[in-house]
Amino acid sequence: MFVDLNLVPPIEIFPGVRIRTPYGKNLMLSYVEIEEGAVVSTHRHPHEQGGVVLSGRMELTIGDETRTLGPGEMYIIPPDTPHRASAVGGRAVAMDVFSPVREDYAARTEAARTAAP
Amino acid sequence: MFVDLNLVPPIEIFPGVRIRTPYGKNLMLSYVEIEEGAVVSTHRHPHEQGGVVLSGRMELTIGDETRTLGPGEMYIIPPDTPHRASAVGGRAVAMDVFSPVREDYAARTEAARTAAP
Repeated sequence: MFVDLNLVPPIEIFPGVRIRTPYGKNLMLSYVEIEEGAVVSTHRHPHEQGGVVLSGRMELTIGDETRTLGPGEMYIIPPDTPHRASAVGGRAVAMDVFSPVREDYAARTEAARTAAP
Repeated sequence: MFVDLNLVPPIEIFPGVRIRTPYGKNLMLSYVEIEEGAVVSTHRHPHEQGGVVLSGRMELTIGDETRTLGPGEMYIIPPDTPHRASAVGGRAVAMDVFSPVREDYAARTEAARTAAP
């Protein structure tokens, strides 16, 4: 399917951090928008996560390593590995991917769809 | 892990189409560069595939639907669904993701790593 982001309801997972998460059977994409100064706090989950920065600059910590990434730079976060992200010097946008699908985000997406006017 | 694309050996999968495929346990990323006029011929595989265009314009066919996508536009290709891609109006770059990992590309990546000087 072709993803029309306008038809995917956004979920605010942290203040100033909005994701839209279309998904299939094995994988979930996540279009992540992080406002300047906003932070995805350190967390972990059993789902493997990959991603690429689309615009802006994103400071990313995976385990005990921190780097600042720009457009086109990619990462793979192993299952159950603590990670944190923030936008530096302005707004940052990334596309993440989860495998398996994050059922929590899928449920929130479907709930938001149902709630839409 | 942070992906250093310079350390991931490229694989030419069609004339003018080069991929670099870092991978984890459940997912494989694929940094795809398609030269102008080059074509990823229609094919299918049991691996689910997602992706986002990073630069340029990519004409993508999924099943019987064709669209031309620009930067930030995303897609999810269900398992075993025929698809085709080409670069239009210049070079196109995308990041694809496969789940499960494509063992054929993993083997080619490792073989290319071993062969590197």
